Formats: sequence, structure tokens, C-alpha cells
Amino acid sequence: MSTERRRVAIVGGGFGGLAAAQALSKADVDVTLVDRTNHHLFQPLLYQLASGMLSMGECAAPIRGMLRKQSNVRVSMAEVTEVDAERRELTLDRGEKVGYDSLIVACGADTSYFGHEEWQEPSFALKTLADAVGLRDQVLSAFEEAERATDDEARRRFLTIVVIGGGPTGVEVAGQLAVLARHHLSHQFSGFDPSDIRVVLLDAGERVLTAFSTKLSAKAARSLASLSVDVREGARATAIDAAGVTYDHGGATQRIEAATVIWAAGVHAAPFAGALAEATGAEHDRGGRLQVLADCTLPRHPEISVIGDAASHAGSDGKPLPGLATVAIQQARHVARAIAAGGPGATEPFRYFDKGALAVVGRGRAICAVRGLELSGPIAFATYLGVHLFYLGGVPGRRVAVISAWASTAMGREQSRVIERELPRPRVNV
Amino acid sequence: MSTERRRVAIVGGGFGGLAAAQALSKADVDVTLVDRTNHHLFQPLLYQLASGMLSMGECAAPIRGMLRKQSNVRVSMAEVTEVDAERRELTLDRGEKVGYDSLIVACGADTSYFGHEEWQEPSFALKTLADAVGLRDQVLSAFEEAERATDDEARRRFLTIVVIGGGPTGVEVAGQLAVLARHHLSHQFSGFDPSDIRVVLLDAGERVLTAFSTKLSAKAARSLASLSVDVREGARATAIDAAGVTYDHGGATQRIEAATVIWAAGVHAAPFAGALAEATGAEHDRGGRLQVLADCTLPRHPEISVIGDAASHAGSDGKPLPGLATVAIQQARHVARAIAAGGPGATEPFRYFDKGALAVVGRGRAICAVRGLELSGPIAFATYLGVHLFYLGGVPGRRVAVISAWASTAMGREQSRVIERELPRPRVNV
Repeated sequence: MSTERRRVAIVGGGFGGLAAAQALSKADVDVTLVDRTNHHLFQPLLYQLASGMLSMGECAAPIRGMLRKQSNVRVSMAEVTEVDAERRELTLDRGEKVGYDSLIVACGADTSYFGHEEWQEPSFALKTLADAVGLRDQVLSAFEEAERATDDEARRRFLTIVVIGGGPTGVEVAGQLAVLARHHLSHQFSGFDPSDIRVVLLDAGERVLTAFSTKLSAKAARSLASLSVDVREGARATAIDAAGVTYDHGGATQRIEAATVIWAAGVHAAPFAGALAEATGAEHDRGGRLQVLADCTLPRHPEISVIGDAASHAGSDGKPLPGLATVAIQQARHVARAIAAGGPGATEPFRYFDKGALAVVGRGRAICAVRGLELSGPIAFATYLGVHLFYLGGVPGRRVAVISAWASTAMGREQSRVIERELPRPRVNV
Repeated sequence: MSTERRRVAIVGGGFGGLAAAQALSKADVDVTLVDRTNHHLFQPLLYQLASGMLSMGECAAPIRGMLRKQSNVRVSMAEVTEVDAERRELTLDRGEKVGYDSLIVACGADTSYFGHEEWQEPSFALKTLADAVGLRDQVLSAFEEAERATDDEARRRFLTIVVIGGGPTGVEVAGQLAVLARHHLSHQFSGFDPSDIRVVLLDAGERVLTAFSTKLSAKAARSLASLSVDVREGARATAIDAAGVTYDHGGATQRIEAATVIWAAGVHAAPFAGALAEATGAEHDRGGRLQVLADCTLPRHPEISVIGDAASHAGSDGKPLPGLATVAIQQARHVARAIAAGGPGATEPFRYFDKGALAVVGRGRAICAVRGLELSGPIAFATYLGVHLFYLGGVPGRRVAVISAWASTAMGREQSRVIERELPRPRVNV
């Protein structure tokens, strides 16, 4: 009989990974949490950082700090490069080995270009903290360029932002950039009128926010239109280059010249999910998400649980559960509870308790769907605020800090619209 | 008789330039303010950003936002590359021309390596916002490397920070990094004990903070020692490379292996001051600071005023005025008042009203000298807080925001210790 404590490895420090570590705080196990960054990222607020409304420290917190009171966790800032499912061992990027008795995979998703890797360079993604800071610097620098531009065509290009993708990220960032242009930049430039800033949203589908009902989706589109966002449905990008976007619209080829192109059209499970599929023979969908059993484990591997955006888990209606923080957090607790009780992973089926889905469109407007209830306008926004602040994990002071930041944003504060570098040039050539 | 409004050009949006623009708000002139960045930087707090205590938005604010209610100011984010003092015209980096009737030069100072330009690459400066963010990422990444290090020598190198320069910047950053190590990181690492983090301060002179009295200087050194900062006076760097610093100490050559070397030993007036000296024949000192007349103007150029760190202005005791925000702000107002009254610049001599000099050493400790009065300890810190918050220009909400940030810092908040990039590697090779 071994007296060694069981070892739990967690890959990823996002909503799922962090919740799993926290849920194991009282368990008689040694936890190793590995993440590529030093921070837990509050991804639903990333578009606020990109549009200069919140600062970096308001969207992310160091994982070590959040877990510092938990003595059974060791945090490693590293990338997992290999997994040996037979030996139950991970290999990190410097060759370090991390053995486990239970493995919780919460590695999340990365931006996907659907095979068009050449689009990465001329566009801006919005998935990591560095993405958001890069996008903020780009947008603000493009406006500085517009201020200095001497010909109208160049100025128009600097003032045009194209967002590709009509999911929550695309809709939220388009709405917030329109608010930035319409409300926060007035009286600040002499070379152009901020109302000349043009935000175009290209969505390949029939309507934005397809995860919501047709009615809410139409409300969101109307809210965007009232903010002067030019929404084009059925528009599929065919080329992205340094000067703009070419797209297909009902068979016709169209072109928009734009200094800033934001790619918010697709995600793919992080590379570790692929390595794990190879090591275990697990199936995955087109987005790289691993097919898990009802209890969140991989077939034939009761000691490996996959949660959050890296997993494809059928909900009670047979459709895959959505990529929401609440899903990842509930799965994390389901898995951790079973491990704390002595098992290698859960054996009971996981059931998602729907806490709703929300999307914010501009200032004080949102759409929200909770268990059949559909909300829009300020009430939906208040719900959104409540839900997000509730999940703003860890330090209680953070919630207060973010409330005060949001309140002061509403009052038009300026301090997050800072460009980090001297005389940065927009990444796009002109 | 011309009906054209007089044109005032301001070079620099630091304390001097911003105060000059604000003091001209009601004057019948057209102001153009040119800065290389889009932000006004609160330089005295930069060491707090570098040590993860404050976030970027708490140390800087966009210049456009601060001046948005002032309709007679145009802001340009650009570098001034040439000045034609005869035609009274500036040339910006894209060839744009900015004519002026009055020129206020508040271009400040850059980091100087005293001819050792090769030290720039292996060391970290602390003069710009990008410097501070880069230093924060370096320090935090070095600790992550120490956590993963497998041999003791490498771990020690990652945990060693050498600060070169015993002026206010060097003393403040050394003290704050020691506080970070001693107070904020406990229970966060398993590969090392944060008290193993070693901060060494090398000062080439006989004592730190030579601008203060021998007594206050000794108090500061004692405060540093109580934080376990290893202060070495009379230590002159002779080489800085990827692995550490070599220095001369009383004729003996010494060596410290360190992953992080901070260069806080010297500044030089910004390049524009050199261009101006060439264009006007003005004299400058070794630090590139332009010799101005008692009224802040350049000899033979009553329409050119030089203020702040770019100027060498003899005080009432014949010694040059110190490089403090209060000096720059008072000079700006002195000059602006004369311009608003219709002159090309001031003709009355400028008199500095001494508001004191302060340096913070660690948490709640400071030394402070005001008009012959010498303070240290918590009272000096309170004075410092008061003075700094008072000058935290522009938006009143900022003062409250910074007070609350500092308060929560004292309570050990975590959110600014975020590394921006994924898996960043310390810049230094290992």
C-alpha cells in the first residue's frame, strides 16, 4: 500500500483549470497546474481591453497570486508538448516530466484561420492578452495616422475597421469600437471627425449571434446598426491583405480598404488537444474538440477528463454544450468532486445547469437568454454585469475594482487609451 | 496689421509641455503640441509599474483626452526632426511643417549610457512606459525561470537583480522590487523562497541620493538595508553583458551574475535639444541641457523658451535647478503667462518656489526635503503621497483611482503582476 499522495495534473489556467484547482483545495492530492501564461484571463472582457475601456490588470490576474493560499498546488508557466497516456506522464517544453494519477485537460481554444494561415499576419485576433493589447495599440495608432494623413483615401483606410465574424466576440468588439468612436473620442482630433470612423462587421452566416434566437439576433443587429456599425450578413472573406479585405457577397466579389482587420471568425482547440487525441485515439470534431463521455472522461481513460472549450460534450438536447465559462466551471467542479472523493475522474454523467448566454452590444445594451427567458436592453446588461462580476474569481477586491472601472468608463475616463510604445506604426503597410 | 492668431508650438507632453498647454487655455493663440507618444507619463510612478504595483493606465493618460476640452490646442503624435530658428519652423518626421511665433521646448531627457551604447541591449532602462512594461515582464519572467531552473547557479542568476545608479529612480525601484520579493510573492513559488531574491544597488558615488543631505541620504541607505537591498557605494560599472555586471570597487574588479540589470545611472536631454543647440548656437552642458537665460529663453531668441529637464537654469543659489516635475510646471506657467500677455516669451526672471524633493524607499517609507525641512518615515511618505496626488494632472477621477490603487496595493492586490506575452523568455541568454 502506497502512502504517496495522488497526483493531479491540470493543463490550462482558464475558467476550467482554475476552478478545478480551487475545487481541489481541500482534497488530499498534489496538484500541478501548467499554463503557457502567468495569468488567468477573464476572456469575456477582452474586447473591453482592446477598445481601451479596461486596462490589462482588470482583465487578467496572476495565477500564482490567485492560488497562493492553496498549499497543495504547484503552478508552472510552461507549454505541455507531449503526453504519454500509458505512463501517465506529461512532458513540458524544457523536457521536464509531470507524472499524474488524474489528468484534467482545460487547455481551451486558439484562433483558427480555417487553413488560411496567411491571414494571421495582416489581421488581428482577440483571444489572448497580447492580442488585445496589440489590437488596442493598432486601433489607436491608426487614428493617429489618420490625424496626420494628407490624402483622403489614406485617411479613410486608417479610419476603417473590419471585423470578420458575427459571433459574440465579433459583435461585442464591433459595438464597443463604435462606442469608442462615437462617444469617447469627440473633440480629440482636428484632422478628422470621429464619426467618420467606420466599423464594418462581416458575417458569413445568415444572421449574427446564431447561438441566440432569431428574435434576439435581430435585436443585436438593430443595436449594432443604431451605433452605425455596418453589418453585412452572408459575407464570406476570400482574401485578407495589408490594405483590406476581399469578400464574397451572394456571388459578387466585394472589397473594403481598411488598416485594421479583426479576425473573430473561428477557434480551434489548443494544440495539446491534438497531442492527446493522438496519444489516446480519442475522436475530435472539426474544431479539434475532443469527444468526451457523459462523465467528461475520454473513452478508455477514466483518469483523463477534458473540460471547457477543448471538449465536445453532448448536452441534454444532444447538441454540444456551448463554449461558455459557466460550462467549463461546472465541468471542473464535477470532475474535481469525483477526484477529491478518491476516484481517477468522474463516473456520474455531467449535467449542465444553464446560467444563460449573454452578448453586449455597445453601451448599456445587451441580449441575454437564460433557460428560455429572453432579455434585451438595460435589464440584459444588468444581468450580464451581475453574472460577470460574480465569476470574476479569486480576490473579492477585484469585483469592486472592475465595477468602479466600468462606472468610470461610463463617465468617460481616459486612462486606458494609452499606446504602449513610442511612435508605433500600424502593423499594416500604407 | 495681421489678423492671424499667434502660433505657439510646444515640443513634449510631459509635465512642462502639458502645463504650458493648459496655462494657455484662455490665451488668444493657436497651440500645437507635439509628442513622440500618445500619453502624458507620470514619471515619478514609473517604478511602481515596473514592480507590478500599478498598471499602465495608472501611470499614464492620453494627451488628447487631457486636452480635449481645450479648443485652441492641436495634438500631434510625431517626432520633431528639425528646427529652422530663422524661419521659425519645425519639421516633423514625415516632413510636415509647424510654424511658430513662440516655441516652448519641453522635450525632457532620455536614458544616457555615457558613451557605452553597448550597455543598452543587455540592461533595462526606466524612463518610458515601454521601458517599465519591459522591465516588469523581465522581472516576473526571470522568477518563472527560477521556478523551473534545475541547477542552483542558474536559479541564483535568475533571482538576482542589479540596479545601477543611486539616484531617486535607482533607489525607488530597488526598494520596491525588494518589497515585491519580501511581501508580495510569499507562498507563490515552490522552486525557491522569495526571500532568496537578491537586489543589489551599485552607486558610483560616495552615497545614494546625493541631491539630499548626508543625513537623509544615510537614512535612505538604512531603509534599503532593512529591506535587504545590498547597497554598494563607490561601485562603478565597467561592463554589462548578458549574464551580469562587472564593476570597479576601490580599484578591485568585482562581478555579479544577474539575469536582470537595471540601468538608472544617467540621462541626457532628448535629441531635439541637440538639434536646437545647433540651430541657435545655444550652449549646453555635458548632459545636453540647454543653457537658458534667467527668463527661460535662449540667448538671442526671446521667442524660444526651454523648460524642464531639457534646460539648465541657474537657481537663486547659482546651482542648476533640479530635474523635478515642480520645476518644469512652474517654468511652463511662467512662460505661458508672458505669451498669453502678448509677448514672444517671458522677459521677467523665473524664480523657483521650492516644493521639496522626495524619494520613496520601500513601503510607507520615504525621505523628503522641503525648504530646509527634512522629513523621513511615514510622515515623509504621506507628504509624498499628497504632493504626487496633487500633481496627478487633468482628470480629478484619476487621483481617486490612484489612491484606491495604492491602498489596494498596500493590501496586497495581485492584478498588475501580469506578464503580457505567452511564455516570454527573459531577454538575457542563459
